[in-house]
Amino acid sequence: MKFNPENTIDNAYLVDFKFIIDPRGDLVEIQHTRDLPFIPKRTFLISQVPNKNTRGEHAHKECHQLLIAVSGIVHVKVDDGFSSKEYILTSPKQGIYIPPMIWGAQYNYSKEAVLLVFASENYDPDDYIRKYEDYLKLRNE
Amino acid sequence: MKFNPENTIDNAYLVDFKFIIDPRGDLVEIQHTRDLPFIPKRTFLISQVPNKNTRGEHAHKECHQLLIAVSGIVHVKVDDGFSSKEYILTSPKQGIYIPPMIWGAQYNYSKEAVLLVFASENYDPDDYIRKYEDYLKLRNE
Repeated sequence: MKFNPENTIDNAYLVDFKFIIDPRGDLVEIQHTRDLPFIPKRTFLISQVPNKNTRGEHAHKECHQLLIAVSGIVHVKVDDGFSSKEYILTSPKQGIYIPPMIWGAQYNYSKEAVLLVFASENYDPDDYIRKYEDYLKLRNE
Repeated sequence: MKFNPENTIDNAYLVDFKFIIDPRGDLVEIQHTRDLPFIPKRTFLISQVPNKNTRGEHAHKECHQLLIAVSGIVHVKVDDGFSSKEYILTSPKQGIYIPPMIWGAQYNYSKEAVLLVFASENYDPDDYIRKYEDYLKLRNE
């Protein structure tokens, strides 16, 4: 099997943001050029996910993503077709960066969970790899 | 009094985002160039605000902001020194745009509230007008 070393699960990683705890409220500051591995063109907000559901089971060919549980708890799995790793997002002060060509899934959303996703590209249906078998084929090309 | 017509509270307005209701979870998509009045350079996430507290009592000279209650409920007041208006943010599918030189404040955060703020500029302490009397002076220059 031939793997692009840029695309293993080791290239998915947690990012810590500037976090200011204050009795008037906690503040996370994300300066895009300084704190994100890419400049986001889109922001998604995902909420009201039933706990039994899994979302986001796909990979992107070119789009970079960064996921933040801005409220509640979300489990995130990253998979490179060779090995996989689970991250549990519990705070807005941390995000998980998922590079292109990494298979991802999100599940075990807590009741109040809201997932924010920054994406590096505008919507392009051709950028999605939606079937895991297709993903494995592309990984092995 | 001399007011810049670009800076009255009528230039603060609600923005509706693309919202997809799905039994697997609701999705808000914000394409920055299409859906926001400016391209954000920073994102803030504000949480754990005690209900009795008011935050964000200031104006910006040049920075544009857009506020979204990604979880819970947040009350937002905009004020141009002449009149004021209150918005109640209750859903991630809508945000309030606050242009420069508009005085803003946020309060009545519900317990689970998380406020997302997009800002058009990187941090510059000189861009803040923190005293209402200074704001009124600048408005009347």
